Amino acid sequence: MNKKIALTGIKPTGDPHIGNYFGAIKPALQLAEQYETRYFIADYHALNQTRDPEVLREQIYEIAAAWLACGLDPEHNLIYKQSAVPQTFELSTILLAFTPKGLMNRAHAYKAMVQSNTEQNRDPDDGVNMGLFTYPVLMSADILLFDADVVPVGSDQQQHIEMATDIAEVINRNYNKEVLKVPQGLIHKDTGIIIGLDGRKMSKSYNNTIPIFLPEKKLRKLIMKIVTNSQTIEEPKDPDKCNIFSLFKLFADQQQQNEMRKRYLAGGLGWGHAKQALFEIINETITPFREEYNRLMADKGHIDAILEKGSAQARELAEQKLVMLRKEVGVL
Amino acid sequence: MNKKIALTGIKPTGDPHIGNYFGAIKPALQLAEQYETRYFIADYHALNQTRDPEVLREQIYEIAAAWLACGLDPEHNLIYKQSAVPQTFELSTILLAFTPKGLMNRAHAYKAMVQSNTEQNRDPDDGVNMGLFTYPVLMSADILLFDADVVPVGSDQQQHIEMATDIAEVINRNYNKEVLKVPQGLIHKDTGIIIGLDGRKMSKSYNNTIPIFLPEKKLRKLIMKIVTNSQTIEEPKDPDKCNIFSLFKLFADQQQQNEMRKRYLAGGLGWGHAKQALFEIINETITPFREEYNRLMADKGHIDAILEKGSAQARELAEQKLVMLRKEVGVL
Repeated sequence: MNKKIALTGIKPTGDPHIGNYFGAIKPALQLAEQYETRYFIADYHALNQTRDPEVLREQIYEIAAAWLACGLDPEHNLIYKQSAVPQTFELSTILLAFTPKGLMNRAHAYKAMVQSNTEQNRDPDDGVNMGLFTYPVLMSADILLFDADVVPVGSDQQQHIEMATDIAEVINRNYNKEVLKVPQGLIHKDTGIIIGLDGRKMSKSYNNTIPIFLPEKKLRKLIMKIVTNSQTIEEPKDPDKCNIFSLFKLFADQQQQNEMRKRYLAGGLGWGHAKQALFEIINETITPFREEYNRLMADKGHIDAILEKGSAQARELAEQKLVMLRKEVGVL
Repeated sequence: MNKKIALTGIKPTGDPHIGNYFGAIKPALQLAEQYETRYFIADYHALNQTRDPEVLREQIYEIAAAWLACGLDPEHNLIYKQSAVPQTFELSTILLAFTPKGLMNRAHAYKAMVQSNTEQNRDPDDGVNMGLFTYPVLMSADILLFDADVVPVGSDQQQHIEMATDIAEVINRNYNKEVLKVPQGLIHKDTGIIIGLDGRKMSKSYNNTIPIFLPEKKLRKLIMKIVTNSQTIEEPKDPDKCNIFSLFKLFADQQQQNEMRKRYLAGGLGWGHAKQALFEIINETITPFREEYNRLMADKGHIDAILEKGSAQARELAEQKLVMLRKEVGVL
């Protein structure tokens, strides 16, 4: 029996961090054990925010290099650029014709902008561009083009899958057959909140992240900045209330965790020691990723070749789907 | 010096009539004398209304056959299907990212629907689909993809050109160069209102049209239905207050018009005679169109071949433009 298809969209944003790695990259890569996986870089989605071409181009390379360095194997998994599969945009045009505007009015991201504008006595649509407003339709096209069975999402993105489902169902009803596969969301198993340098959730907007591919020295310096309390070296410490330990656990195996837990409880472990141990275990895990990332970023032609090979395969699959759809809707 | 480019969008709707011919088809075809012309069948625009694939497919053939039969020469003018130039939809996606939602909120067609919904106490967006709402962006993509200098429009469509202009200017400003040519509207010379069977403007919504390709007998029967007053045969008649004469003028040369005018003023011309004369002159003009139309409709493979040849050329032009644009925005 054929494996089911899992589709993962990757938005090009600068500098992926430890939170991205454990919250998104690692679980998405693990899907390859169970599913036929397809990963795409959502570069035209990024155009809604990133209007500087140099920045966008660099971010596309960075995110591709990041996922490849973290273990995405392009020989056994499809990776492509959204912009290199033009059938996406034709499908999006078809979907628009069947999408009630009311559905878009209810999208969380749009509603949040309207609310913020209203609170500040601005026009409700102030600063809203049509790319943002139609974003759920383009995302539905990304998903429906490849007959994805499941799409891994954070719980805050569940609405996108619901919208793709709604639109697919309108179309299937109109043509009285399953022309589009109705996808399912696959909510990431809870990795727990990943804590940043200041003890809050790790997030770029808090400026408290640990980037994955930081050079060794900078990584150490950053980890030394983790905020701790004023307990002395001698005092026994509670590992379960410690930011350092919560990060340590992500990288350590069970035995390493148990040993560190003992050192915490015994007293005599200063914050400096704990940070040093954290740095060492992160650095040990990350060093091969960082080296691969740097190798890739030094040879962008190689990244291009990987993406173009995947995109050519994706175009072939997509064209088959589109030929069927064009006939179904009556333009062919 | 290269000729300027005129782009004409053709919406597939059933059965073109005399009003369409003189109001749109003939003036658009005359552009070929002065411009390099490009004509496209806007089939994905039609998908917003026509959800029956058989109907849509047939309408595409009908409208293509109609324009070809009325004189569109595919050897010297580019004719293609919108759906066969996928670069259109990629450009539309790019344009969406730069289009303020406020611009779409002000589109006449959308505003009319909102007003009608509001008057009837329905949700303002009731029955509005996203294809309709984003229609001005897709139309802008149609235009901007081919560097059109001018776009022939009715005065009621002037807004579409203004929107294409607005969007192109936002993008040109962002990239600080003319990546998209700013088009100009070319408002049809006033052909005057073309009167239908009942004396009102000829329009499908009034059900008072004279279809161009009607078989001879049906054409005669229809013309005999033109509403007239109760003047007797003997009474002299005023040609300038006569629906029949106003249609006659469209088809007659100056000498024929003068002669008929004399017969009106002299008395002794009954409405039946006037209608017969109108039928004869329409039939004489239309017969070669009708024969060519029927020939084409009996050989759809030939229509396919013409459209595919044009579409292949259009794709080539479009791909050049898109390669440039992808580099400009930074996805390539």
